[in-house]
Amino acid sequence: MKETDVLILGGLSGITAGISCRRHYPDKKVVVVRKEGTILIPCGIPYIYGTVGGPQFNVIPDGLLESNQIELIKDEAVVVDRENKIVTLKDGETIKYEKLVFATGSMPIVPPIPGVEKKNVYAIWKDFDYLSKVYDEMINVKDLVIIGGGFIGVEFADECRKGRDINVTVVEALPQCLQMALDDEFCAEAQEKLIEAGINLLVDSKAQSILGDEKVTGVLLADGTEIKADMVILGIGAKPNTELAKQSGIELGFNNTIRVDAHMRTYTDPDIFACGDCAEKHSFFTGRPVNTMLASIATAEARIAGANLYSPVHRNCGAISVFSTVVNGRAFAVAGLTERQAKQIGMNVVIGKAESPDTHPGGMPNSTLTKVKLVFGKENGVLLGGSISGGKSVGEMINVLSACIMHHMTADEIVMFQMGTHPALTSSPIAYPIVNAACKTVPFLHK
Amino acid sequence: MKETDVLILGGLSGITAGISCRRHYPDKKVVVVRKEGTILIPCGIPYIYGTVGGPQFNVIPDGLLESNQIELIKDEAVVVDRENKIVTLKDGETIKYEKLVFATGSMPIVPPIPGVEKKNVYAIWKDFDYLSKVYDEMINVKDLVIIGGGFIGVEFADECRKGRDINVTVVEALPQCLQMALDDEFCAEAQEKLIEAGINLLVDSKAQSILGDEKVTGVLLADGTEIKADMVILGIGAKPNTELAKQSGIELGFNNTIRVDAHMRTYTDPDIFACGDCAEKHSFFTGRPVNTMLASIATAEARIAGANLYSPVHRNCGAISVFSTVVNGRAFAVAGLTERQAKQIGMNVVIGKAESPDTHPGGMPNSTLTKVKLVFGKENGVLLGGSISGGKSVGEMINVLSACIMHHMTADEIVMFQMGTHPALTSSPIAYPIVNAACKTVPFLHK
Repeated sequence: MKETDVLILGGLSGITAGISCRRHYPDKKVVVVRKEGTILIPCGIPYIYGTVGGPQFNVIPDGLLESNQIELIKDEAVVVDRENKIVTLKDGETIKYEKLVFATGSMPIVPPIPGVEKKNVYAIWKDFDYLSKVYDEMINVKDLVIIGGGFIGVEFADECRKGRDINVTVVEALPQCLQMALDDEFCAEAQEKLIEAGINLLVDSKAQSILGDEKVTGVLLADGTEIKADMVILGIGAKPNTELAKQSGIELGFNNTIRVDAHMRTYTDPDIFACGDCAEKHSFFTGRPVNTMLASIATAEARIAGANLYSPVHRNCGAISVFSTVVNGRAFAVAGLTERQAKQIGMNVVIGKAESPDTHPGGMPNSTLTKVKLVFGKENGVLLGGSISGGKSVGEMINVLSACIMHHMTADEIVMFQMGTHPALTSSPIAYPIVNAACKTVPFLHK
Repeated sequence: MKETDVLILGGLSGITAGISCRRHYPDKKVVVVRKEGTILIPCGIPYIYGTVGGPQFNVIPDGLLESNQIELIKDEAVVVDRENKIVTLKDGETIKYEKLVFATGSMPIVPPIPGVEKKNVYAIWKDFDYLSKVYDEMINVKDLVIIGGGFIGVEFADECRKGRDINVTVVEALPQCLQMALDDEFCAEAQEKLIEAGINLLVDSKAQSILGDEKVTGVLLADGTEIKADMVILGIGAKPNTELAKQSGIELGFNNTIRVDAHMRTYTDPDIFACGDCAEKHSFFTGRPVNTMLASIATAEARIAGANLYSPVHRNCGAISVFSTVVNGRAFAVAGLTERQAKQIGMNVVIGKAESPDTHPGGMPNSTLTKVKLVFGKENGVLLGGSISGGKSVGEMINVLSACIMHHMTADEIVMFQMGTHPALTSSPIAYPIVNAACKTVPFLHK
């Protein structure tokens, strides 16, 4: 029987948890077990089909594990004997551990639509060989239908059209694409960009069944419309991969995630931790369980879990939820609550909006209009969230807001924010839209 | 005699102070007096000579004043009668005020080098007609010498070479260009980019005199070298424009700036405020006066001053000093203290460094390596400063650090930072270099 101090089950957040553990406990032996041979950058998966040109260009190198003296075993854990602290792998090997970390992630939801089992209907499994097959199959596809207009669906639609003579249709059940993530005005903007790119959007539309004999030939919508399709991608969402944890008698919580405390320790077993998509998350704002799966949250949790294994160092403040996407060249990002979400949790809010070119003067090359919307609590002026659309710099601008939210910064403080500005890199100091959006709210707060 | 509630003297920060006042005191009459007809974006001035193609493309529109019902008078204030609260303009007009704001900015230091008065030797006055003349003269220039290798000097060198058949030489007295602003490794990187662009760098070099009859023909260095020149630009630095304040009996402080408190109110007169380059600044870190002139600080101060005119709303927390520049396509930025500066004020520091491509996978288009260096106080783990080099997103990434510094964020907290990431916009969540730089310092803190 193999022995280790720390045993980590899983992929992306497993790597980060391992490195964090190595940093805090340099003398401990760390082993990562995962079933995937090659591990993909999860947020890069849509880009395999367009910009980067294949799954082989979207791989996380295992060198990170080696250079941190973390042993990697490519196999699947099938039994956890908590009493004896022994994990059994599929090939029969057993590993004794002191501390165990579940970083088993999530898997795609496959909706129970009749015909979903037909050939060329694909959910997005984070599996190299599977996604390679999808890549190869897509070469001859003429009519691609994507069911689901959330991030995955929209990013796939935008990428799959690139460099291909292909009709792409997105079928979304809600009135707008990205509606769970963005406020209405940003949804509208993103949809315009999709339409500009030649993508067919069918909103308020439900896929009722998938047509064809062995292989898909079309999608039938609830309203009777038939759409031609020789490939269907399912972008409905993901669910936590917690079957093994459940079988091991570990308590699950919200939406079948593993119940953990703010130290990322399971409620059930003091020597077992969990992080990433498989772990329960709580809102930074309300403390309630939330259903957010983001690589940025997963890696933050992994850093906390790895550091806390032998003595709690870090406390998880809850999921702020910060993300960004690009739709036909325009970036969209949110940190914290949208206006819709803030109102859903009962907040009285004050909204501030501002826009400005992301260079100054606006005549600098590649200048892009940036639009910022901030949401503040009316009674205390605290920043609850922000949404931004614009050019490449939006990816880091949203992180400015994440830092502000994490510190409960008020509109009054953001008015005094000292931002660096430069003609080629940012808006002008007079027009900097995060500050100007905050300025506009000041007269409406504390009243 | 004209009457107003609020009278603001000056340009860039005058506009921002006026808008801030308008927002907080909607009923007050606000007048801005400035001598410049057209006002330039100050940080955009070097870009007039390259990327934007002329001063007419680098103008702050006066529409901002109009839309905020702020009256603009293009004239120069010459006398302030504080006892009667009356300002006299050059054309003889008098204006009675309740509250007066000095936003008179700064002007270039003209070093006392023999020959500095010769034709085609230019300090950088923020004056449209003057800079237009420099633009026209530069058309026929073959040998441009820039005295001073700080931001202004380096940005002029990089811009003036663009689209011109011209030899550009930078003469810097210190051992490295940008040495007052950047740590050694970033100075070295910036210098490499300048040399790559074909710019001649003469460091450890002092301009002893400017040669020529009526018009400049060369620069003589202290070591006896003569450099050919048909134009010389002086990029030595700036000094506050506070002559009128001094004549009005207002107390000056450090480096002849107007002495103000944290409300931006002058020490001398409760109805007179100052903001921007003409106002005294104190370090966010030590509280000591500092000699930093940045548009971002100026506008933050202007927002504070404008809000505080009739009742203090905001308190200035001191200058963090956040800035960015671009050298031959690579961005360099600093927020807070560099390692050198932290050591100069006696801090024990722990340094964390990390680098990563600014996309993930690195094979995404236009991926640029981002290098991050963070400086933490050894005893308390608080972030004192950060330096970044990389691509366009550095301009906003440095603002993430500004927000972290403003909230005295510790390395432990940055380890848990929830950053949004996206393949086309940022580093990967595993490699995000701000977080990874903080992670690396954790074992060396609190010991």
